[in-house]
Amino acid sequence: MSDTPRLTFDLDEPGIRKGHLVVPKGTDSEALSLPVFCLNKGQGPRLLVTGGCHGNELEGPIVARRLVDWLPEAQTCGRVIILPVLNPPAVQAWSRNTPVDGLNLNRAFPGRGDGSVTERIADAVSRLLLPMADTIFDLHSFGPLWDFPPASTTHPIADADLMAKTLRMAQAFKLPVTLLWEYHDTPGMFDTWAHSQGKVFVCAELGSGTVGSEALAIYEAGVRNAFIALGLVEGEAECPTFRQQKSSQTLETLSSDELKSPARGIFEPRCSVLDEVKRGDLIGILHPMDSLSADSIDIRAPTTSIVCAVKSGLHVDANEGVALLARPLNR
Amino acid sequence: MSDTPRLTFDLDEPGIRKGHLVVPKGTDSEALSLPVFCLNKGQGPRLLVTGGCHGNELEGPIVARRLVDWLPEAQTCGRVIILPVLNPPAVQAWSRNTPVDGLNLNRAFPGRGDGSVTERIADAVSRLLLPMADTIFDLHSFGPLWDFPPASTTHPIADADLMAKTLRMAQAFKLPVTLLWEYHDTPGMFDTWAHSQGKVFVCAELGSGTVGSEALAIYEAGVRNAFIALGLVEGEAECPTFRQQKSSQTLETLSSDELKSPARGIFEPRCSVLDEVKRGDLIGILHPMDSLSADSIDIRAPTTSIVCAVKSGLHVDANEGVALLARPLNR
Repeated sequence: MSDTPRLTFDLDEPGIRKGHLVVPKGTDSEALSLPVFCLNKGQGPRLLVTGGCHGNELEGPIVARRLVDWLPEAQTCGRVIILPVLNPPAVQAWSRNTPVDGLNLNRAFPGRGDGSVTERIADAVSRLLLPMADTIFDLHSFGPLWDFPPASTTHPIADADLMAKTLRMAQAFKLPVTLLWEYHDTPGMFDTWAHSQGKVFVCAELGSGTVGSEALAIYEAGVRNAFIALGLVEGEAECPTFRQQKSSQTLETLSSDELKSPARGIFEPRCSVLDEVKRGDLIGILHPMDSLSADSIDIRAPTTSIVCAVKSGLHVDANEGVALLARPLNR
Repeated sequence: MSDTPRLTFDLDEPGIRKGHLVVPKGTDSEALSLPVFCLNKGQGPRLLVTGGCHGNELEGPIVARRLVDWLPEAQTCGRVIILPVLNPPAVQAWSRNTPVDGLNLNRAFPGRGDGSVTERIADAVSRLLLPMADTIFDLHSFGPLWDFPPASTTHPIADADLMAKTLRMAQAFKLPVTLLWEYHDTPGMFDTWAHSQGKVFVCAELGSGTVGSEALAIYEAGVRNAFIALGLVEGEAECPTFRQQKSSQTLETLSSDELKSPARGIFEPRCSVLDEVKRGDLIGILHPMDSLSADSIDIRAPTTSIVCAVKSGLHVDANEGVALLARPLNR
């Protein structure tokens, strides 16, 4: 067995190819074979679509799997590589992080060939797939613990030209929200690494909670819109219907826009995503668990904003994030 | 410290009381103090409300906590005991089972005083709270891995009179579904034990997925309807609005109505709860994970039925349940 990652087929061959990205074995696991689809129609955009980075976000793998079904009929040019599941051990365990080494794949880029299994996956993708694309769509979701609207997101990028191109690409999904997301913990992220290589990288956050059929149709429509914008397929882009509305807005959220729980206890959500709130409006309530005599604590909006994410009702620690506020992007 | 469970207050005292049910320490954990609320207005129904049996079903604890807030203004007679969280270690861990001993509290009844922590919780509830009530509402939900409508449920009961009374009580919630649920794994369930003591026990399954504010309002309305039916509070019962509809139907599901995955892979839901399906309609698709050349497998309805539960899109094993079908109850 080789010690370096490899593909079981040649991405430069024309037409449809299905094979595997082989992540070499290491001290902590056997080799992994990640199924890969490639449709090469010659000149045109070079796109990489990935899903299943976090094992409890299955929206991406399912939408990617649907792409594999309809793309052969629809794609007119360029080359699309699809890797529906970046992290099979995490998906099998319905776990955000990889069970074997406990690492978050989205903090492990560009990876290490001699590292643990998560680092070896990142290394294989960084070496063999990332260089083959100019544009990357990484299909995430907010996971089971949050309420979140279907959104395409990007973190701020220092290179103004790449920032503008990335934001335009994100908006082309025409999902209910395009989000410019200032985040405090970006080293090792797939997008941070791809942006450093000059790639246009959009992270789709395809909703949250239970993965249901109606929501999946919205996500697939958003990804199809982005394919149309890239010129890979023909058609008319259209905002999908979300909560009886066809609309798309571009929002910005800062690290300081995260609301934290004031104490340990059970969080009760009292607002919904995309609610417009004013200073003092109720976002949620924290119920201390140890005694019913202890007062519950209201969590209120500090300023006029739009609710971008609300944590599901569940037990939280003090200072744990329970909501993310946002406002229309002005730039 | 006592070796037997105890309450820190007397349930027979009139008015509002807040205190704790103390579950004795054992070899595996310290003593637990479970917050208890009691409102005693003398003659009338004797009701026990519990939540948080499974630690990843927080709908119940939040609705129970809301009851504690409005009941003092609303209750006109009888005695209501509320235990919002039956299993604090599981709730803190967002885990169905108790982390310390790995047991499912809803398979541990009537419990053991000299058992592990889960068995000691069941023992404390069985000894000190269950005898104080004639009716029990145990507030569950279908958890984060399923799509499920707000429902009140009961398993079949051999005693025909108790069965009829229990079904009437379940219907009084006026939730979108009242479900008579034949289930294969009932020994050790809280309801099985309570029914054996002649109690009317309704298990509310308050939806599923993310615990959000709109859904919580439906659940609270359902519980309030049941309080009205019992005569504990005054008011007019009303079907809450679920998916733009105000309706309530009584369904029956058998053990044989569970659809299983035909293979190991990623399940893609293709229907929604309360969909009416005919024989051959698509319920979901199973995508093998190991290769994109392997055919996906359609999972179809075997007969005319109503979709009662659909598993969230996620990785499943062969023969794992992915949907539950039902039909209108004829009795």
